[in-house]
Amino acid sequence: MPRNFADALLDAIQAKGAPVCVGLDPAYDRLPDKLRRRASDEVEETEGIGEFCHVVLEIVAPIVPAVKIQSAYFERYGSVGVDLYGLIVERARDLGLVVIGDVKRNDIGPTAEAYARGHLSPRMSAYGPVDRNPDAITVNGYFGADGLEPFVQTARDEGKGVFVLVRTSNPSAAVIQDFADASGRKFYEHLAEQVAAIGSAPGLIGNSGYSCVGAVVGATYPDEARRLRSIMPQQVFLVPGYGAQGATAADCAAAFKEDGTGAIVNASRSVIFAHKDKKYAGMDWEQAVESAAREFAEDIRRAVGAKG
Amino acid sequence: MPRNFADALLDAIQAKGAPVCVGLDPAYDRLPDKLRRRASDEVEETEGIGEFCHVVLEIVAPIVPAVKIQSAYFERYGSVGVDLYGLIVERARDLGLVVIGDVKRNDIGPTAEAYARGHLSPRMSAYGPVDRNPDAITVNGYFGADGLEPFVQTARDEGKGVFVLVRTSNPSAAVIQDFADASGRKFYEHLAEQVAAIGSAPGLIGNSGYSCVGAVVGATYPDEARRLRSIMPQQVFLVPGYGAQGATAADCAAAFKEDGTGAIVNASRSVIFAHKDKKYAGMDWEQAVESAAREFAEDIRRAVGAKG
Repeated sequence: MPRNFADALLDAIQAKGAPVCVGLDPAYDRLPDKLRRRASDEVEETEGIGEFCHVVLEIVAPIVPAVKIQSAYFERYGSVGVDLYGLIVERARDLGLVVIGDVKRNDIGPTAEAYARGHLSPRMSAYGPVDRNPDAITVNGYFGADGLEPFVQTARDEGKGVFVLVRTSNPSAAVIQDFADASGRKFYEHLAEQVAAIGSAPGLIGNSGYSCVGAVVGATYPDEARRLRSIMPQQVFLVPGYGAQGATAADCAAAFKEDGTGAIVNASRSVIFAHKDKKYAGMDWEQAVESAAREFAEDIRRAVGAKG
Repeated sequence: MPRNFADALLDAIQAKGAPVCVGLDPAYDRLPDKLRRRASDEVEETEGIGEFCHVVLEIVAPIVPAVKIQSAYFERYGSVGVDLYGLIVERARDLGLVVIGDVKRNDIGPTAEAYARGHLSPRMSAYGPVDRNPDAITVNGYFGADGLEPFVQTARDEGKGVFVLVRTSNPSAAVIQDFADASGRKFYEHLAEQVAAIGSAPGLIGNSGYSCVGAVVGATYPDEARRLRSIMPQQVFLVPGYGAQGATAADCAAAFKEDGTGAIVNASRSVIFAHKDKKYAGMDWEQAVESAAREFAEDIRRAVGAKG
């Protein structure tokens, strides 16, 4: 059996001393000026994106345990972008980072299985298996158990992980996800119960006590994160919303257990596009990314440490 | 302004005389024997899949107005598969088919916008725009309005469509999606109300009275389809579940209005893998696909016609 993903993630967090993840959302029009050539076509845009991602990975690898790579900014360019996504995943892993592919895939039966194999399993080439796929992916749970099972089985068999979207961090999430039953129980809590049940099946729980089936729980709603923490004791939470989306380190701390484990906080734009923040004026963009990554890690480390 | 997607789809349905769509879910291990070479690597598998899809498209193009292409079976092979997906979309459109890309993407803000551009907009090459993207895609609505807006705006601007997953056809859908409030209103009905509101914004409704924002409503639950029909009067329903998933033509008819408009029924495996059905024993696989496509179209045409 391959190693459990949650165990590997927790070890990586401990080694770096901070439960944080940098999100690579490389929108071309937000890249530092010097990386935006006068692109005459989209292939040239992907070259700028590739260079940017490579440099960001080298800067953050000594500071953070994990990166989350947002597939949309690569799919934007069709197969050329998908190729680049694979190369960036591979480079991140070579640098010792745990890699989460933010793909939010969802479907049922054999189709979900095809997604799981395409996004989690090594692929077979004439030269043997090539693994340019991430260590874990995000998935959308709206199909219920039979949509999640193929992803969960692949994760178990390949030593990989899945993070199921439970409560998202965007403003209109509440309109949809807070739909409540007669007892006041909300839809996302109902979904969380399903995730907890699916994630506790045999073979999914590591030595750490956590499952390779985790959950995405937005930091912008800390009271909800606390309730979800008790509904899903064995799930590692991937927590978006820090920084650009407005959540503070104290908000994020709600997603952790008292012992400081159980979650990893993601920041994307506030780190990778730090050169746009006047706080870092006068630095070159690489220095801005490094400073922002270090401050982010320290901010979360302190808030989570203060909890215990 | 480009033409409204719903108008174009309704015209195509009228021209072919049947509100049906063939789903291309080309799982390699289900292809006809003669297309499964002794593949030594995955590139050779994609060659078999490509040949299969090309032949199926030629067979069904005179019979049905639309095809739904399931992205998972292409993403399964990374960038090589994504390239093939674009070629199959282009070929289908050249044959006069309306093309629905079944991608079920979902995210928020700029990330959803990147997905929308990657999967709906033409892409810019050094030689000008190249449109190997489908006429419409499926999306998952769990993020709510601010996750759907970027897809909807792109669809409006490009003359394309989106189908939001509302009620899926799989067995465990009920456990998740039937979660009800104190008045008995179900989660998927709540989502349907959001889709109806989002889809009625200015610029989205065509001359037909239908919106370029449609909904996926599984045929396996006809009573629910009837209720959803009244909640979403301006949405075209994309109806999965016929055939392999067990829904009959009469079940599917529940998704249509009395005038026989408002929905398109999809069948995937029961048509493209008809060679595996003993009903078609003795036919070569191409004849089996043609017979199954004709019977499917006739079955739905009769059931919907009987409604008026």
